[in-house]
Amino acid sequence: MSNPGKLRIAIVGSSGYTGGELFRILLHHAHVTVAAVTSEKSAGKPITAIFPHLAKLTDLVCEPLDPDAIAKKTDFVFLALPHVTAQEAAFRFHKLGKKVVDLSADYRLSDPALYEKWYEHSHQYPDLLKTAVYGLPELHADAIRKASLIANPGCYPTGAVLGLAPLMDRKAIDHRTIIIDSKSGVTGAGRSPGLPYHFPEANEAFMAYKIGTHRHTPEIEQELARLATERVTVNFTPHLVPMNRGILTTIYATLTAAQTDTASLHRTYQEFYKDKPFVRLLAPGQFPNVNAVRGSNFCDVGVFADPRTGRAVIVTAIDNLVKGASGQAVQNMNLMMGFDEVEGLAFAGLFP
Amino acid sequence: MSNPGKLRIAIVGSSGYTGGELFRILLHHAHVTVAAVTSEKSAGKPITAIFPHLAKLTDLVCEPLDPDAIAKKTDFVFLALPHVTAQEAAFRFHKLGKKVVDLSADYRLSDPALYEKWYEHSHQYPDLLKTAVYGLPELHADAIRKASLIANPGCYPTGAVLGLAPLMDRKAIDHRTIIIDSKSGVTGAGRSPGLPYHFPEANEAFMAYKIGTHRHTPEIEQELARLATERVTVNFTPHLVPMNRGILTTIYATLTAAQTDTASLHRTYQEFYKDKPFVRLLAPGQFPNVNAVRGSNFCDVGVFADPRTGRAVIVTAIDNLVKGASGQAVQNMNLMMGFDEVEGLAFAGLFP
Amino acid sequence: MSNPGKLRIAIVGSSGYTGGELFRILLHHAHVTVAAVTSEKSAGKPITAIFPHLAKLTDLVCEPLDPDAIAKKTDFVFLALPHVTAQEAAFRFHKLGKKVVDLSADYRLSDPALYEKWYEHSHQYPDLLKTAVYGLPELHADAIRKASLIANPGCYPTGAVLGLAPLMDRKAIDHRTIIIDSKSGVTGAGRSPGLPYHFPEANEAFMAYKIGTHRHTPEIEQELARLATERVTVNFTPHLVPMNRGILTTIYATLTAAQTDTASLHRTYQEFYKDKPFVRLLAPGQFPNVNAVRGSNFCDVGVFADPRTGRAVIVTAIDNLVKGASGQAVQNMNLMMGFDEVEGLAFAGLFP
Amino acid sequence: MSNPGKLRIAIVGSSGYTGGELFRILLHHAHVTVAAVTSEKSAGKPITAIFPHLAKLTDLVCEPLDPDAIAKKTDFVFLALPHVTAQEAAFRFHKLGKKVVDLSADYRLSDPALYEKWYEHSHQYPDLLKTAVYGLPELHADAIRKASLIANPGCYPTGAVLGLAPLMDRKAIDHRTIIIDSKSGVTGAGRSPGLPYHFPEANEAFMAYKIGTHRHTPEIEQELARLATERVTVNFTPHLVPMNRGILTTIYATLTAAQTDTASLHRTYQEFYKDKPFVRLLAPGQFPNVNAVRGSNFCDVGVFADPRTGRAVIVTAIDNLVKGASGQAVQNMNLMMGFDEVEGLAFAGLFP
Repeated sequence: MSNPGKLRIAIVGSSGYTGGELFRILLHHAHVTVAAVTSEKSAGKPITAIFPHLAKLTDLVCEPLDPDAIAKKTDFVFLALPHVTAQEAAFRFHKLGKKVVDLSADYRLSDPALYEKWYEHSHQYPDLLKTAVYGLPELHADAIRKASLIANPGCYPTGAVLGLAPLMDRKAIDHRTIIIDSKSGVTGAGRSPGLPYHFPEANEAFMAYKIGTHRHTPEIEQELARLATERVTVNFTPHLVPMNRGILTTIYATLTAAQTDTASLHRTYQEFYKDKPFVRLLAPGQFPNVNAVRGSNFCDVGVFADPRTGRAVIVTAIDNLVKGASGQAVQNMNLMMGFDEVEGLAFAGLFP
Repeated sequence: MSNPGKLRIAIVGSSGYTGGELFRILLHHAHVTVAAVTSEKSAGKPITAIFPHLAKLTDLVCEPLDPDAIAKKTDFVFLALPHVTAQEAAFRFHKLGKKVVDLSADYRLSDPALYEKWYEHSHQYPDLLKTAVYGLPELHADAIRKASLIANPGCYPTGAVLGLAPLMDRKAIDHRTIIIDSKSGVTGAGRSPGLPYHFPEANEAFMAYKIGTHRHTPEIEQELARLATERVTVNFTPHLVPMNRGILTTIYATLTAAQTDTASLHRTYQEFYKDKPFVRLLAPGQFPNVNAVRGSNFCDVGVFADPRTGRAVIVTAIDNLVKGASGQAVQNMNLMMGFDEVEGLAFAGLFP
Repeated sequence: MSNPGKLRIAIVGSSGYTGGELFRILLHHAHVTVAAVTSEKSAGKPITAIFPHLAKLTDLVCEPLDPDAIAKKTDFVFLALPHVTAQEAAFRFHKLGKKVVDLSADYRLSDPALYEKWYEHSHQYPDLLKTAVYGLPELHADAIRKASLIANPGCYPTGAVLGLAPLMDRKAIDHRTIIIDSKSGVTGAGRSPGLPYHFPEANEAFMAYKIGTHRHTPEIEQELARLATERVTVNFTPHLVPMNRGILTTIYATLTAAQTDTASLHRTYQEFYKDKPFVRLLAPGQFPNVNAVRGSNFCDVGVFADPRTGRAVIVTAIDNLVKGASGQAVQNMNLMMGFDEVEGLAFAGLFP
Repeated sequence: MSNPGKLRIAIVGSSGYTGGELFRILLHHAHVTVAAVTSEKSAGKPITAIFPHLAKLTDLVCEPLDPDAIAKKTDFVFLALPHVTAQEAAFRFHKLGKKVVDLSADYRLSDPALYEKWYEHSHQYPDLLKTAVYGLPELHADAIRKASLIANPGCYPTGAVLGLAPLMDRKAIDHRTIIIDSKSGVTGAGRSPGLPYHFPEANEAFMAYKIGTHRHTPEIEQELARLATERVTVNFTPHLVPMNRGILTTIYATLTAAQTDTASLHRTYQEFYKDKPFVRLLAPGQFPNVNAVRGSNFCDVGVFADPRTGRAVIVTAIDNLVKGASGQAVQNMNLMMGFDEVEGLAFAGLFP
C-alpha cells in the first residue's frame, strides 16, 4: 500500500458521502495514495464496513481524529467534517505544516461576523481565516495554487456562481434582480437519517426549504460581490429532488442591454470559460440535465436571453458530491500541488 | 350500471392519465354515473385493459368517438383529448346540447390569434371560443356556474395563478418582476412513451425544458392580466421531476410596499381564500410539499416576504392530475350542475 | 364532528403510516366517525401536524394513550402500536368492553411459545390470545364476524397466504417445496428513520434482508398449516424495493399432479375466490403489478403452471398499507360490525 | 486521437446503454483507444449528441455499420447490436480477421436448434457458432484467452451462474430444485421507449414478467449443465425494479448434505472464487445490495444455509450494464489480448 513518491493523503471524517467520494476519486489518481482515514464512530473498523462499494479496493481501517498521529503518516489533508468541528482541525493540521482542503463551511466566509451570524458560532481562528482561499478554481486558480488552506465551496454556491460569473464579470446584468432557484438531490442533506430524508417521505416528494434563510446565501453573495466589486443581495431558494445526486440551478437576472440575444450571451460564456476543463457550455437552445454530470466533475451550462422579458435565464448542472464537493476538492489539490488540473478527474459520469 | 336520476357522464379520450383519473374520481361521486368512455385505439376493449387498477370497479367498454352516439346515452361530457382534436369535439357536443368540460388547451386562450401563435393551429370555432369560461373556480365560480363550455385550466397555470392571484388582486407586487419557476412530475408529459420519459432517462434526472417558450405561458399571462387589468409578461420555466405526480411552483415578485412582512402577506392570502374549500394556506414559515396533495384536489400554499430583497416568495403545490386536471374538471362540473362544490372531491390524498 | 348513530372510532398509535392510512380510509366510511387519535410523542398536537395531507379534513388533536379516557368516547378501537406495546393495550380495551382490531403482531401467533421464540418477549395475556381471531377475511370471515379481538395479518403473510390458499386447500402442491420470495416498498419498514431507509441508501438500491429469520415466517406457516392440517415449513425471503408502497410476492411450489396446466390452475383460483370482493384474479398469462393496487384494498393474483418444471408459480400484489394493514383492518371491522364488507373500501387505487 | 501502440477499438451499435457504457469504461483503459463507433440512426452525428455525459471527452462521430471500412481502422470489435443483427456482423468481422466480443445473445447457445426455438430465428453461421466461447471469465478464462469470438453472457445468466457455480461444481445441491428469482433495474430493457418503461408506469411499480418463458433461461441451463455434466432445468423468474441499474438474484436449492451450515457453504465459495478479482464474497450472514456494485464490475455474493428447510439461499448482485454486459466484455477483451484481467476495470462503483 505504501507508494514511494506518492503524496500521502488523509481523509478526515470519512464516513459521510463526501468522504466516500474522495476515496473513490483518489483511488485512481496517479500521484497520490490515501494513507489514513478517520471516523470517530467507526474507529477500528475497515472503511469498507461503512462503504461496501470499496470492498477489495482498500484495506484501510478508520482511526480516531488525532492530528499528530495523522500528520505523521500523511502529507495532505482533506477535511470532510461538519462545520464548527472543522475549524479546529484545519487549524491543527495547518500548524503541523500540512496543506488542507476543508470541505466544510468554516473558512468560506471571509468576514467572521458574517460566519457568526449565519452559523451561530463564533470563529475561533480569524487569523487563519484570513489566509484561506475560496476554492473555486474557475475563478481563483492563481490564489489556489499558492494557498495552504482551501475553503472548498458549498454545493449550491458552486452551481450558482459558475452560472453567474460571466454575467457579473461583463456587467451584463443588473445584480439587484438576481434570483437563484436551486434543486438538489438528497445526498446534499448528508448521510444522517432524519424524517424529511426517510425514503417514503422524500420519494415522490418535492419541496422548497429554508426559503430566504439558507446558509449558502452569504457565500453566494460574497463571491458575486467580488465579481461585482460591490455588495450583492440575492434571492436563493433551495429545493429537494427525489434523486440521489445532482444540483440544477435556474438563475434569472435582468440584462442591462435589453437587446442582448442568446447568441451573444453564449459567446460571453464561451470566452469566459474557454480554458476551463470542467465547464461544458451547451449549444444555444440546449439546457443541461443533472443526469449528464452524475459522478463527474463537470459543470454543464445552458444560457438563454428571453426577448419577451429582457432577462437572462441561465441553467447549470453539477453533481453535488463531485464538482459540488469532493471532485472540486481534488481539483483544488491538483492546483495546490502543481499536478495537472484534471488529474484523477477526467472520467465520464455514470449514465444512466 | 344504469342509475336512474344520476347524471350520465361521457369521458371522451379515456386512455390517458387524465381520463383514468376522471374515472377514479367519478366512481365515488354521489350524483353521477360514467355511462360512456371513448378511445380510438382501444375501442372494443374494456377500460380495465388500459387501466388495470379499475378492475372489478367497472365493466365499461371503450367505444370510438362518435358524438351522436355518445350524446344519446350521456348528459355531460369531459373531453380528455389532445389539443386541436378537442376543438371540434367540443363544438359537436355543444351543438348537441351537452355541457362540456374540455381538459385540453383549445378553449383556454380567449384571443384566437394568441392560440394560433402558440399552438401553431388556427382556431376553427371562434364563436364558441367566446362563450367558453376559464375554469378556475377560485376566481371564476359565478361564470362557471352559468357556462356550458368550460376550458379546464392547464396544470402549470393552476399552480401559478392560484399562487399569484391574491397579490395581483391587492396590487401588492410589481407584476413586471414576476418569475414563475415550476417543477412537475412526469405524468405531466402524458402517457405516450418518448426518450425523455423513458425510465432510465427520467429517473435520477432533473432538467428545465422549453425555457421561455412553454405554451402555458400565455395562459398564465392571460389570467394574471385579468387580475391586473393590464398586460402582464412573465418568465415561466418548467422543470421535470423524477416523480409521478405533483407540481411545485416557486414564485418571485417584488413587493410594492417594501416593508411588507410575512404576517401581513399571510393575512392577504387568508382573506382571499377564506371560503375556498380546496386552497390550504400553510402557517407562516411553512412551505408545501407535493407529497401532501398527491391524489387530492387541494392546492397548498406557503408565503414568505423576504426582508433582505423586498420580494415575495410564494410556493404552491398541487397534484397535476387532480387539481391540475381531472379533479378541477369535476369541481367545474359540480358548479355547472349546481352540486356541492366538493362533492366527490373531499377525499384525502395518498400519503406516502 | 359528533355524528349520532355513527360508530365512534379510536385510532391508537396514529403517528405511523398505518395510523394515517386508517384515518384516510375511515374519513369516507358511511357508518363511522373517528373520535379519538392517540400519539405519545405528538400528544396535544393536531393530527394534521403529523399528517399534512389531512389538513382541512379533520380537527382532531392527538392525545396520550389512556384507555379509560379513550374508551369513554369511542366504541371501537384500532391499535396501530408497535408489537409488545399492543399486548397490554388490547387487553385493556378488551376489558373495557371494546371491540379491537390489533394491527401489530401481538395476537397473530396462537402459540405463545412461538411468539416468545420469534419476538423475544413473553406473551402476558395467553387467555386473551386464545380468543383472538386471525383477521384474513378471505379465509376466516365467519370467525371474524363473531370475534371481539382481531389479530390483523402482517403485510407479507397477507400476500403469501392469499397466493397459496387455493393450492393448499385443494392439496394441489407439495407443501414441502414452498418458496416465497417477497418484495416490499419501504413503508413496510415504518416511519422511523434509519440508515437503510435513508433516501440515498434505499433509492437506486435493492437487497434481500433477514433471510431465513424474518418474523413473518411463523405467521405464514401457521396459516398454511391450518389449510394443510399438518405442519408446514417454508423458505420466505423479503426484499426491499425502492418504492413507497406495495408488496409483490412470487411463490413457487411443486404441483402434486404434474400434468396440471395453467388453465386448470386458474379455475382452481377462480372457484376459491369467486365471492371475494377484494381478490382480483388476472387472466391466464397475466401477472400483477403493484402499481395497479396502490392505495386500494385489492389483492391481484396471477397464476402459472410451468410445464418444464412441474411447478406452480403464483404472483400476488397488494398495497402493504391497505390490504396489508389498514384496509384489511377496516374490512375486519366491517365484518365484526355487520357492515357491508366493502363499505369504505370500494375505491380505486391511485394510478399512476 | 490516434495513439500509436494502442489497440484500436470499434464499438458497433453504440447508441444503446451498453454501447455508452463500453465507451465510458474504455476511455480509461491504458492499452486501447476507441477508434470507431457506429450507429445507423445517428450516423454523422457526434457520439456526444446521443450521450451528453461524454461531452469534452471524445470527438468521435457515429458512422454507419460498414464492416470493411470499420475493419480498416480498428483492431478489435465490440458488437452492441440487437440479436439476429449481430449474427452477420460477427461473421463479417471475424472473416476480416478481427477479434470480436458479441454482447448480443447470438452466439451464446451452442446448440443452434435451441437458439432457433427460443429466439424464433434460425442461426445462419453454425460453423462460427462452434468456435464461439461463452465469455464468463470466472468459469472459462482459459478458453477465452484463446478465442477469437466471445459470446458475452446475458445479464441475468451472469448473476445466476456466478451464484450457482460453486454449488454445482461441488455437487452440493440437488439441481432439480433450483429456483432463480431475479430482479433487474430498467436499463435491462434497453434504451427504446415503450409503455412498460415509461417513467410513470415503471416508477413506483414492481412486476414479474415472462414467467417461465424468458430467453435467458436456456442460457442459464446450458452453463449449469456444463457444471453438472447433465441436463439441468430451472425455474427462472425476472422482475422489473424501479431503479436504473443492477440485478439482484435470489437463488434457492436443496442441499444434498442437509446438515450443511452457512459456515461450510461460505468456505466452498471462498475456495471457488479465491483468485477471482471481481467476485466479492460477503461475510456469513451478510447479503449484497445492488447499490454497492453500481457502476463497477464486481459481483457481490452472500450465502445462507437454512437449517429449517435444508436449502441454500444464495444472493448475488451485479450492475447489469457492467459485470452484466460492458464491463464483462472488457474483461473478456483483457483476457483475449493478454492484458491484465482488471485493466480499466479496477474502479469503485458510484455510491450512492
